[in-house]
Amino acid sequence: MINNTARRGEYAYVLHKVGIRSSSLDDVYRTLITVEGLSRWWTSDTRGESKVGGVIQFRFGSGGFDMKVLELQPGKRVLWQVVDGPEEWLGTKISFDLKQNGDWTIVLFKHEGWKEPVEFMHHCSTKWAVFLLSLKSLLENGKGRPWPDEIKLDSWE
Amino acid sequence: MINNTARRGEYAYVLHKVGIRSSSLDDVYRTLITVEGLSRWWTSDTRGESKVGGVIQFRFGSGGFDMKVLELQPGKRVLWQVVDGPEEWLGTKISFDLKQNGDWTIVLFKHEGWKEPVEFMHHCSTKWAVFLLSLKSLLENGKGRPWPDEIKLDSWE
Repeated sequence: MINNTARRGEYAYVLHKVGIRSSSLDDVYRTLITVEGLSRWWTSDTRGESKVGGVIQFRFGSGGFDMKVLELQPGKRVLWQVVDGPEEWLGTKISFDLKQNGDWTIVLFKHEGWKEPVEFMHHCSTKWAVFLLSLKSLLENGKGRPWPDEIKLDSWE
Repeated sequence: MINNTARRGEYAYVLHKVGIRSSSLDDVYRTLITVEGLSRWWTSDTRGESKVGGVIQFRFGSGGFDMKVLELQPGKRVLWQVVDGPEEWLGTKISFDLKQNGDWTIVLFKHEGWKEPVEFMHHCSTKWAVFLLSLKSLLENGKGRPWPDEIKLDSWE
């Protein structure tokens, strides 16, 4: 059955792009598919198995997300699905598509499957940008700002 | 007539949120409704009339946007509509909704009316985050990073 809510969910996504100067597809890809790489730009408390069918645990103090790895295309694409975490995230998919543009590596990011444009979606959209800028900084300057050192957007963080 | 493109457009939006520490609704509102305030966090080349029915010109070197001011609710809400600029932006609406949360002022941002999730939408979404973090920095630390000093996301910027 198609209803307005389902239709809304189908098209509610968070989109981002970061271009990373003087980097290669391989360098960027490695930071997205290794627990060590992920822990240097998203959350310092990252564990699990980054292989197709494996689950990666991202923790931020009391809460966090479990992501099942659905696709790994070397130097090209990473796709995860949320299998545990806040209700609004359950079942949503997160992808990173990479391409080269001269000396820059471009990361096109999508987090799709949000059902409603709730305030938490506003929060998570900007938070994704904060962490993707941390990824850019890690690769350009050697230093990211993973949780718990990232920019805070609200008093409860 | 309703078709898939129109339906998609209806629900394609960029959402963001920034919380600004130790600030008041009035302080944040002023940076959104004065040419001087806007020029300290978005683009240093901002001109025009920020009053309901007026048009504000935002310039970034060769290109830019003209925004018609549709709503100004003191300490609460600002709404603009794009009347000149890139094709993807024409007719889209941009809103800032403000609320207080203890010592923080929360800005809920929405840019709605995008027709398709094109790469330029990815770019603009992250760019909005970059500038909203500049707004946060301006109010928290007295220094924003408006164009041309903001973080660049691609080689063509």
